[in-house]
Amino acid sequence: MVLIKRLIQKLRAKSLTLSAAESCTGGYLSYLLTQTPGSSHVFKGAVVVYSLQAKQQFFFLPKSLLETTQGVSKQVARLLAQNCRKTFKTDIAVSIVGAAGPESVKTFKPGTVFIAVATSKKTIVKKFIFKGTRDAMRKAAAKRAIGVLCARLLP
Amino acid sequence: MVLIKRLIQKLRAKSLTLSAAESCTGGYLSYLLTQTPGSSHVFKGAVVVYSLQAKQQFFFLPKSLLETTQGVSKQVARLLAQNCRKTFKTDIAVSIVGAAGPESVKTFKPGTVFIAVATSKKTIVKKFIFKGTRDAMRKAAAKRAIGVLCARLLP
Repeated sequence: MVLIKRLIQKLRAKSLTLSAAESCTGGYLSYLLTQTPGSSHVFKGAVVVYSLQAKQQFFFLPKSLLETTQGVSKQVARLLAQNCRKTFKTDIAVSIVGAAGPESVKTFKPGTVFIAVATSKKTIVKKFIFKGTRDAMRKAAAKRAIGVLCARLLP
Repeated sequence: MVLIKRLIQKLRAKSLTLSAAESCTGGYLSYLLTQTPGSSHVFKGAVVVYSLQAKQQFFFLPKSLLETTQGVSKQVARLLAQNCRKTFKTDIAVSIVGAAGPESVKTFKPGTVFIAVATSKKTIVKKFIFKGTRDAMRKAAAKRAIGVLCARLLP
């Protein structure tokens, strides 16, 4: 994927580092980000926070927020990205949470995904709705996260 | 992948939980493990320890061992699996470290991979050498980790 290569090159040229917190995509975003040789200069790691426990343990999300949202909300994505950035001590962090299906999570139907990007200055969160099979939705969400990163970071 | 589904079903039936520490595969193993709906009952999460810093920070690997090995050795895989199991408080943990290429890591040529599986009773570590492109080697390593888990856990 040309976009991933460009993103990694750009971050490397600017000496910027990146980390990730992934829930519904289960590691696919990290897999994409590490496809390019030399990505280790930029990408420091990720946590696949596939349980509420992991979201709480690694990124200190309040138990009450996790119980209310079952881990899927704009606020969860925002806090994951912000705290991921601090935990990994990276310049940028990206997070993905959502309902991969087959069941809805609270009021969110399968395919509903929140993607957040945190820098020292600002955190943005975007909501998307993907369609298709579980696998297609998960892959689309990971690819869209690359797109969100590029929109923030590439000229 | 039928094997993944069988593995998740088996672990769920036995009420066993699983976590992962991935280096060279960059999240692809976690992506495979979470392909099956309901995998969240079994798979609690993973850390993509794509830097020496992450291996030290999340799983307490000695700095001296990481510097000597550059993160690729039987002992690194063993400690990652054992400490991943403790960190996630899961019954089983699997780890993958290796040289994804294009460069060798110390004496290990691209394609050299160590896979470890830790339970409360025992930790096993296996060495593999994969051939092909960077992507093919990474995918093969993640799939082989599923195979190692199945060999340990399926009847």
